[in-house]
Amino acid sequence: MSTTTTEESLGTRIEQALRHRFSERSAAAERYGSEFAGLWQAAEEHALGGKLIRPRLLLDLARALAPAPLTADEMRSAIDVAAHVELLHFAFLLHDDVIDGDLMRRRRPNLIGALVAGRPAGPTEPALHWARSSAILLGDLLLSSAVLGFARAGVTDEARERLLGLLEETIFETVAGEHADVALSDGIITPDLRTILSTSAYKTATYSFVLPLRAAAVLVGSSTAAEDHLAVIGRHLGLAYQLQDDLLSVFGDPEEHGKDPFSDLREGKETAIIAYARMTSQWDGIELHFGRADLSPTDGAAARDRLRECGSESFVRGLVREHLESADAALREAEGAGLLPATAGDAIRALASRVGGRSR
Amino acid sequence: MSTTTTEESLGTRIEQALRHRFSERSAAAERYGSEFAGLWQAAEEHALGGKLIRPRLLLDLARALAPAPLTADEMRSAIDVAAHVELLHFAFLLHDDVIDGDLMRRRRPNLIGALVAGRPAGPTEPALHWARSSAILLGDLLLSSAVLGFARAGVTDEARERLLGLLEETIFETVAGEHADVALSDGIITPDLRTILSTSAYKTATYSFVLPLRAAAVLVGSSTAAEDHLAVIGRHLGLAYQLQDDLLSVFGDPEEHGKDPFSDLREGKETAIIAYARMTSQWDGIELHFGRADLSPTDGAAARDRLRECGSESFVRGLVREHLESADAALREAEGAGLLPATAGDAIRALASRVGGRSR
Repeated sequence: MSTTTTEESLGTRIEQALRHRFSERSAAAERYGSEFAGLWQAAEEHALGGKLIRPRLLLDLARALAPAPLTADEMRSAIDVAAHVELLHFAFLLHDDVIDGDLMRRRRPNLIGALVAGRPAGPTEPALHWARSSAILLGDLLLSSAVLGFARAGVTDEARERLLGLLEETIFETVAGEHADVALSDGIITPDLRTILSTSAYKTATYSFVLPLRAAAVLVGSSTAAEDHLAVIGRHLGLAYQLQDDLLSVFGDPEEHGKDPFSDLREGKETAIIAYARMTSQWDGIELHFGRADLSPTDGAAARDRLRECGSESFVRGLVREHLESADAALREAEGAGLLPATAGDAIRALASRVGGRSR
Repeated sequence: MSTTTTEESLGTRIEQALRHRFSERSAAAERYGSEFAGLWQAAEEHALGGKLIRPRLLLDLARALAPAPLTADEMRSAIDVAAHVELLHFAFLLHDDVIDGDLMRRRRPNLIGALVAGRPAGPTEPALHWARSSAILLGDLLLSSAVLGFARAGVTDEARERLLGLLEETIFETVAGEHADVALSDGIITPDLRTILSTSAYKTATYSFVLPLRAAAVLVGSSTAAEDHLAVIGRHLGLAYQLQDDLLSVFGDPEEHGKDPFSDLREGKETAIIAYARMTSQWDGIELHFGRADLSPTDGAAARDRLRECGSESFVRGLVREHLESADAALREAEGAGLLPATAGDAIRALASRVGGRSR
């Protein structure tokens, strides 16, 4: 029971740190007029209330990796860095939604959708332009806030240098992944399996898994060898997570995962499932339905059945298993070399089991 | 002659610092595929070759404010910070061009236009989407690079804290100004003169004038009182510069300023010239031509003549004069209080005279 209480209070402390940051920015925004202040209020509503997966992961690992319980000061610094990882995530989501032209996320209006809905004349061209431009600009502010947060972390000079280098690599690789993702969707590069997998790893695994694990290692003063192993583990777990996400959104229960069923098919999203299907004789039948905005539930179900029959589902399930096994192998190697304390192994195994077993 | 040589060699050193940064990023981009590496090469071409107004201003003032000639190390740090101010500028330009839907800048294709021109099928929707998304993503990288550059400046901890605070304020205010500018162009807020002037100050003066002047003060260890006066001076000079820019683009010689004549009128740009004209009885005749993409040279010339007749031109020339006078008053106050060395006064007066007398 005590673990649960601590988990909950950690979540609360991350939320408090984020709320504090947003309130302070909303107040500073007041002097630039009500529209700009309103943007910050909308941002606060949309950025909070999430599952805080990334900052929780960071704090969870920091506690598990630390040779001794974190002091109050160390915990405060870790929560601060973790909150800035969440700001980075929100900045990426905003620009991603602009690029994808999305007005919804998980069946609710995203920030852009909410800003459009707030305009009296409804979704006119100027209202859409206003909402998307606002999202670009807010993303810029959150991105720079995230970097500033790392630059001001209450840690030693050496740790700050490592954190800044890590953040620089992370942003560079995430943007490279997003850029490749746009190239895929605009037909600029070929959607082969290898490209799709590396794009996923760069775009999502790097900042969602590798960054929290490595940042935790830096914060508690782990060796660079331990950090390197955590990078490999994070990359495999992040890929497994993303592939699970792809599987759930096509084959999962929409009541559980909360997305529109068939939305990936409707949007023509280039996933590992699709890349595999392209190489099979069933592709012609699937392609008919792929990327059709008007895909009916019946046709969606037919396409899904064909994706199962052609072997895509079990191929991707196999990939998830492989990445979980590779993460486990890297973990055992690190343990064998005495790089990680037993508590860290436990935390990573618990994480891997959540990634492998999730249904939403 | 020696001054000229030094100015030239400073320009060269800023260019070298920028070129070094871009080459290093282009090399890092290679492993993410040729499209991403190509984006960096295009970025280098577009970011270099400019007039480097902001970094030059920073270095000019740093030398003029310093109590003793800068050491080689101090100069290196100043050039590094100055180069990151230029990266920030380029990041803002990229997102500005995305928001405005522009494919050209100063009669040449901007980065977006160049990326579109590079697509075999020409300016199709996917090509435009690709180019704009690329510009959003590259802007994100340059923005975070600018913050990282400030965070890693080779200065004392205290100076770095001041530089980071200054950069945070600058980005926040510039984005607030850009946000208000979008609100003006989308008809969300009323284009009254007061709003237009504060929007200009926030959007342009803050990062183009206030940031270089204040950063120079921090780099050479000037007092915060000196920095505060430089902020006021920078704001007035920046506004004078922007108002001159508005005047030139409507009333100036296109051969000299290098922009399309009447482009501001064609785009319906809300400037101080227009805000004044709106309050006169001539507005109805001007409004006919305002914001018309198909504005002919004859109609453009007619609108320009009316803007002159209604008193807008002389009103805005008066504003330029007032801001130059206010800058001068703040400078004299700082000198009277012994806050600035004589060399700084000379440098600022030379700058003010360039702002007041420019024709392009």
